[in-house]
Amino acid sequence: MKTSSALSFLDTTIRAIYPQDFACRELAESRCKRLAPSRWALGVLMELAIDLAGMTRTLQPPMARKQMVVMAGDHGVAADEDSRCPDESTTQRVHALVRGEAGVTLLARRSGIEVCVVDAGVKDDLTGLVQDGNIIAKKIGRGTAAMVNGPAMTRTHAVMAVEAGIEVANRFAGEIDIFGAAAIGIGDTMSSAAINAVFTGKKVEDLLVQGESLDDVRLEHEIGVVNKALARNRPNAKDGLDVLAKVGGFEIGAIAGLIIGAAAKRKPIVVDGLSSTAGAMIACSLEPFVRDYILCAQRSADPGHCALLERLQCRLLFGLDLRLGEGAAAVLALEVAEAAATLLAGVSTGAGVVDASSVDAGAMT
Amino acid sequence: MKTSSALSFLDTTIRAIYPQDFACRELAESRCKRLAPSRWALGVLMELAIDLAGMTRTLQPPMARKQMVVMAGDHGVAADEDSRCPDESTTQRVHALVRGEAGVTLLARRSGIEVCVVDAGVKDDLTGLVQDGNIIAKKIGRGTAAMVNGPAMTRTHAVMAVEAGIEVANRFAGEIDIFGAAAIGIGDTMSSAAINAVFTGKKVEDLLVQGESLDDVRLEHEIGVVNKALARNRPNAKDGLDVLAKVGGFEIGAIAGLIIGAAAKRKPIVVDGLSSTAGAMIACSLEPFVRDYILCAQRSADPGHCALLERLQCRLLFGLDLRLGEGAAAVLALEVAEAAATLLAGVSTGAGVVDASSVDAGAMT
Repeated sequence: MKTSSALSFLDTTIRAIYPQDFACRELAESRCKRLAPSRWALGVLMELAIDLAGMTRTLQPPMARKQMVVMAGDHGVAADEDSRCPDESTTQRVHALVRGEAGVTLLARRSGIEVCVVDAGVKDDLTGLVQDGNIIAKKIGRGTAAMVNGPAMTRTHAVMAVEAGIEVANRFAGEIDIFGAAAIGIGDTMSSAAINAVFTGKKVEDLLVQGESLDDVRLEHEIGVVNKALARNRPNAKDGLDVLAKVGGFEIGAIAGLIIGAAAKRKPIVVDGLSSTAGAMIACSLEPFVRDYILCAQRSADPGHCALLERLQCRLLFGLDLRLGEGAAAVLALEVAEAAATLLAGVSTGAGVVDASSVDAGAMT
Repeated sequence: MKTSSALSFLDTTIRAIYPQDFACRELAESRCKRLAPSRWALGVLMELAIDLAGMTRTLQPPMARKQMVVMAGDHGVAADEDSRCPDESTTQRVHALVRGEAGVTLLARRSGIEVCVVDAGVKDDLTGLVQDGNIIAKKIGRGTAAMVNGPAMTRTHAVMAVEAGIEVANRFAGEIDIFGAAAIGIGDTMSSAAINAVFTGKKVEDLLVQGESLDDVRLEHEIGVVNKALARNRPNAKDGLDVLAKVGGFEIGAIAGLIIGAAAKRKPIVVDGLSSTAGAMIACSLEPFVRDYILCAQRSADPGHCALLERLQCRLLFGLDLRLGEGAAAVLALEVAEAAATLLAGVSTGAGVVDASSVDAGAMT
């Protein structure tokens, strides 16, 4: 139970979250129905436009100012276990992002979208990048503890990770219209699978599947690690902070916070990939209303990701079958969101609405 | 058989079409594999990037200059039959496009994409719009003849429609990098279903389904019209011009020509919606190599569209479930194509390629 006397930063933020505005949704829907040609439909784009109107409380949702946030963190589980990416480190990926050489940054540059990287808990010391102003420092710890041996982090650290995400959201909220969220962290697949299993109730065997870089032996090993972590920690599905602390990651907590912060400011937020979707699941568990502000960038070929998306039931934008969760699909989704807003604004200002007097053929009903 | 003595404009253009360049595809693929993170994948975006390299014969395909072409034409079948859009005319839709008030134009403006409308055979007189420079005049006839009574057009008119499309492609080819194609025309659903049935061998009953604006009685009627037209005309599936002439439309022929013209100039072309996909099917029938230059903007909820896409086997970009074929998805697809090209260019110039010497952690293999 929340008490008014000692509200945490997290609690205060959660209290500022309201569902989408129904009146705005209805008005947007009725205007969209007037878009020519009246008997045809713009499918997902129109549903998205109605969502954006409900989130932002306007029939001309501003969508031009877009910010991608990539949360980075390491997982204790990867330190002494086989990883899917034995030849890569989270630090290397952070550097590629900062140099503008990752897929997400190449795409973002083309679209004029800013990308910011947050160190939520990378194992290595990234002080140099912080001092150069290239990343935001919110390091909760130097990677999580191995979840096979006990909780990945303390409950206090879990709250800190979520609050770090809220702080990032607040830092940008005044200057931007829509967020994109992605997470990177070697070992995140196992942590995401654990969170996934807790919330969907599915077997880990059905969530982790063989990938291009994962042979049978490693797959068996990963399934074993996740099952051991779940048996050892027994996360409580009704308590998002408990799940985050026991089998989550710092970057996943920070994603949850970013989503909560965005929702409190009535800003749409696009999530991309498995671990940012796991973060969205944590956020929804802490406050179900945040669901109204989440857009999922991509359908995925990954059965675990699919299970999580189904559980979340947020608006899905498209199926690009990307297997890279660092935000490439989110960048494109931000463009699609702006496209949907453009359509709605066009209708709202009268453009796109068939006016019988201005066309020279046929009778309008 | 083609003879060298009396080659038509269509034949000459078709002879300039070559498949994608295999060496460029291979080089693009090997460079993409070096994109960091090496063990992850950019899915459709990378496959698309390899396609674009194969089409344009370069590892840095230019994609910035995009042109949407909307072909318009009327169908004789709609004149004395119930239509799905009793309260709309093709002319009205042309006017909405010219005024920039249609979905496709609202989206295109946001992306800085030019939209041009071509009168390939609209029933009404559009001289005013032509004189004002708002549309391109390629009118083959004032709508096709009713296909239930005989061929929709003569074989000569079918060739003229395709050649009109090639002329439009040639007009733009020097100034643009990629085309988007869409078609509008009341009555096109039945014509597309007939073309679809010829090429896929499926029953008309399985291709035409009940829609929002189509009740049981009308659906039965439309199925009857298409079946009657097929029985009466017996189009030859091995002769694309025969199919176009007997059950096609002027705007569908013009789409086929636009695709053939684009392929001859080695320009990618995005098709969107049922009738432009039917045009793509006609083009592939005339010259199978054009398939290498076609990108399909959207998966569709429509079973007829799905059947045609499956038969075409071109690259599918995403599932937005739009039920509007006038090019809204194509506009977004043009953006995605540019995104894919940006990724490839990034890899080709060295950005995005993991360089072990420039990162400070871990060993690279």
